[in-house]
Amino acid sequence: MRIALDAMGTDLAPLAEVAGAIQALKGSPGDVEIVLVGDESVVRAEIDKFDHVPEGLHVRHAPDRVTAEDSPASVIRRKPQSSIVVGLRMHKDGEADAFVSAGPTGAVMATSLFTLRPLPGVDRPPAGAMLPTAKDLCLLVDAGANVGCKPHHLVQFAQLGSVYARDALAREEPRVGLLNIGEEPGKGDDLTIEAHALLSAAPGINFIGNIEGRDIVRGDCDVIVCDGFVGNILLKFYESVAGYIVDLLRTQLEADRSDRLDLEHVFRVLDYAEYGGAPLLGLGGVSIICHGESPPKAIRNALAVAVRAVRSGLVRHSAEDLQTP
Amino acid sequence: MRIALDAMGTDLAPLAEVAGAIQALKGSPGDVEIVLVGDESVVRAEIDKFDHVPEGLHVRHAPDRVTAEDSPASVIRRKPQSSIVVGLRMHKDGEADAFVSAGPTGAVMATSLFTLRPLPGVDRPPAGAMLPTAKDLCLLVDAGANVGCKPHHLVQFAQLGSVYARDALAREEPRVGLLNIGEEPGKGDDLTIEAHALLSAAPGINFIGNIEGRDIVRGDCDVIVCDGFVGNILLKFYESVAGYIVDLLRTQLEADRSDRLDLEHVFRVLDYAEYGGAPLLGLGGVSIICHGESPPKAIRNALAVAVRAVRSGLVRHSAEDLQTP
Repeated sequence: MRIALDAMGTDLAPLAEVAGAIQALKGSPGDVEIVLVGDESVVRAEIDKFDHVPEGLHVRHAPDRVTAEDSPASVIRRKPQSSIVVGLRMHKDGEADAFVSAGPTGAVMATSLFTLRPLPGVDRPPAGAMLPTAKDLCLLVDAGANVGCKPHHLVQFAQLGSVYARDALAREEPRVGLLNIGEEPGKGDDLTIEAHALLSAAPGINFIGNIEGRDIVRGDCDVIVCDGFVGNILLKFYESVAGYIVDLLRTQLEADRSDRLDLEHVFRVLDYAEYGGAPLLGLGGVSIICHGESPPKAIRNALAVAVRAVRSGLVRHSAEDLQTP
Repeated sequence: MRIALDAMGTDLAPLAEVAGAIQALKGSPGDVEIVLVGDESVVRAEIDKFDHVPEGLHVRHAPDRVTAEDSPASVIRRKPQSSIVVGLRMHKDGEADAFVSAGPTGAVMATSLFTLRPLPGVDRPPAGAMLPTAKDLCLLVDAGANVGCKPHHLVQFAQLGSVYARDALAREEPRVGLLNIGEEPGKGDDLTIEAHALLSAAPGINFIGNIEGRDIVRGDCDVIVCDGFVGNILLKFYESVAGYIVDLLRTQLEADRSDRLDLEHVFRVLDYAEYGGAPLLGLGGVSIICHGESPPKAIRNALAVAVRAVRSGLVRHSAEDLQTP
């Protein structure tokens, strides 16, 4: 098996690619070969820095590099000698069995689509992404390749996600959840209400129904389907929130000059009950909604929010602002 | 100032409400009064459990209680003696200056809308929610009241959110960001592309442009506007992820039988680089996309994902599954 790896994709290119390829070859059985695709002299210079280069590492010359400034749709035409176009062409022509790139996402997607073509029956090929959960990894589809999806696209995402979960994640009968804003079938926007009906009737899909934002980390699904707009926002938010929370912990450890940890402090910073309820805006009065699980502290804070809103003249200011746009 | 507080909203009602109201009165200046709205005998029995009840705590009898089973739109007609309807009517009639409830969200929203009415110029009153960030709290609008918004609704959300940020959060010139899947003005779905243009031209809004999912926790905005569908999913996800991460930490502390903490372990569980790249699905080949910031480890793992996909016959299985739906 031969994998074509874009050597010019990462911010650290080609260092991260060369080092990653060498690590991968050391850890895999002998039938895997990796072809680094990029400027040959640059890539070879990087390889030469390593003492032990395993068998099965090759280089294919591709002098050009795609940048974030390139329009994704024009890469094939404008940069035919780029590592992305050359690597995908190798895969298309059977010289490689797969292509991996850390280049600009839009360019890799568009060029993959043009070069490898969608399978019959696939209208809008989606991107998958792995989400860590309390149980196991879960596949999010679509993670950002398509916005403005139709209900039948979400059914295709469910089918493709199920195959991936079986083949790459070894889940026997992958459970598919539809990302939505309520559990009941009638909840959601036009897209998810109709997609729920289609998914319920689709053969070969183990559809477990709607799942809400708070269900994701529970890990009761193998595959979560959604439009690429919400999928992309969710994925990027999740990736950033881990770093944010670890930073919170680090700051606290340093402030305490210890390696003991007051978990309650961190939890408090992130606890919705600290911030009072959700104000309804744009009404002729002040109405604050709290969680049903609110403890006394959350009620106290919601009352403080109400007091602030009344004292500041929120309703009058809102009326004035909307009148004079 | 008098706040009407639904005493029958929380899962712990009326305990959480009574305790929260007493805490709030103890912490606020003498001009605040709180009216607990609910079954008078039940509420008074709860109040009697407290040794020191501050001045300014009142009870208004409302024998009925709204449950999650009630259709939100029919609450006013079917349960006119419920704590939600009675409390909002008090506010409408000037007997209270605000209303706070932890009752079923849909019922509180619908009854607030019918009773308090939207301000002139407001088509779809949104819900706000506070998000903790690395800098300061940030207001998310809409957090779930409206799905299927039009671009001009998002402009109204920006106006209402700006007023709230000024009045309740003391931000002088609130920075408004549009939640989207790319930074550039042309990025997004139909809604956000058009909303970006409207927000850029709207007077009185300090619009700082698109913000992506990964920007939220940075805290560079005072107000984030979005459709209620994505807002609701994001909010519920954020609320749950804090608990998940604290659980990860607790589990690790217990496993180590220490109160020392290996932050790297936690970070690793949540680190996208551990899970390889994002596979494009439904194509006539295997194409894996990695982050531009990928370190060698992420490239190694993406190569492992590619190897698994090739070895398992992912493309063939996908083609078969899509052919025989």
